[in-house]
Amino acid sequence: MAAEAPAVKLIGGYGSPYVHRIEMALRLKGVTYELILEDLRNKSELLFKHNPVHKLVPVLLHGDRTVCESLVILEYIDEAFDGPPLLPADPYERSEARFWAQFIDQKFARPFWFSFWTGDDVDKRAFLKEAKENLTLLEAQLKGRSFFGGDTIGFLDITACALAHWLGVTEEVTGVTLVNKEELPAFCKWADGYISDETVKQCLPVRDELVAYFSARKEMYMARARATLHK
Amino acid sequence: MAAEAPAVKLIGGYGSPYVHRIEMALRLKGVTYELILEDLRNKSELLFKHNPVHKLVPVLLHGDRTVCESLVILEYIDEAFDGPPLLPADPYERSEARFWAQFIDQKFARPFWFSFWTGDDVDKRAFLKEAKENLTLLEAQLKGRSFFGGDTIGFLDITACALAHWLGVTEEVTGVTLVNKEELPAFCKWADGYISDETVKQCLPVRDELVAYFSARKEMYMARARATLHK
Repeated sequence: MAAEAPAVKLIGGYGSPYVHRIEMALRLKGVTYELILEDLRNKSELLFKHNPVHKLVPVLLHGDRTVCESLVILEYIDEAFDGPPLLPADPYERSEARFWAQFIDQKFARPFWFSFWTGDDVDKRAFLKEAKENLTLLEAQLKGRSFFGGDTIGFLDITACALAHWLGVTEEVTGVTLVNKEELPAFCKWADGYISDETVKQCLPVRDELVAYFSARKEMYMARARATLHK
Repeated sequence: MAAEAPAVKLIGGYGSPYVHRIEMALRLKGVTYELILEDLRNKSELLFKHNPVHKLVPVLLHGDRTVCESLVILEYIDEAFDGPPLLPADPYERSEARFWAQFIDQKFARPFWFSFWTGDDVDKRAFLKEAKENLTLLEAQLKGRSFFGGDTIGFLDITACALAHWLGVTEEVTGVTLVNKEELPAFCKWADGYISDETVKQCLPVRDELVAYFSARKEMYMARARATLHK
């Protein structure tokens, strides 16, 4: 009898695109997992124990192994489980996917966040300009393909999930428009393709529920943006 | 006759630990490369052409391929060239190396930088406390080994190079002491081991020259820290 495979558990939280990344990776690999939902405003001892450094979701528990930070978890899943690869095979294409994933999590995130969540006390034009320029860079990376990875969803598509689904939700909640089909046709086609995918649909938060979730937290996010900007 | 291997060129700049990372990786793999030294205060068209997104060194040119961002370049070198692996073989150990590399470049960097380069107008205690706590986390990762990767220098050692060599230089230039052997014995042993390595020595900036370089730029770094903190 084969040894039983170690259990896979994901410590997550409702509404997090970082958690969606991991759910998608596990589903693409065909890995069964248990989702443990944290209350992100009242974090558990379980989370503190497994991610003492960052105290953030997602955290992947694979048997007695703990892996934190979503991009690190994606690479781990790609290497530790069978199933279709998330990253391309070619070293150069892998480096491109990693470069743009890092771009999304680092350079992209700040102006994107401030474009939406700063108030009238701030001149948003510089943030909006930079956020749009960054989106144009991503548009160019699609190079006529349906997904960043080619014909099917891969590492960079998963990483960019917030831009496919959460972006439109945030536009609706804040009243700030960042994207239109005339300026970013390939990007908009990609976003539609991503949220229409059958595997994605199985683990994507329902749009109306996400709008309600962020609407209820609008003041909190705006206060956080104000504090970050002025600290 | 075998096809000639594509040329490897590294766009770098004097005194950058990020550039040292790439030189070390190439040398460990036994790859011959040409180092193109940028004047970082007067960057070239070559740099802007090959790294239009970040406009930063290092940039690796491998034939007609361009790879940017030092951690992405390290993974590329590990995958594209033969020679001893930089990352461990086991997926979980790989995830640990990537987690701590990301920690060094993100969470670690800010309090570390501000501990040294902020002036008397700022209460440094919080930065120093956080920087020391972060160093203690790294100390614990050595787990009695000579290097983070075990007996030999690997991915995380290379990534942490600034803590082995640049840290002491910065302490000398700024007069701020962050590390001592009583509090961080394993870390200090690791740092000594790293800078004593024969391959490291071939591409490590000479200490006295680095002290002179940073001394000449002290006011600039302090002004930059002030601007970052108050923007």
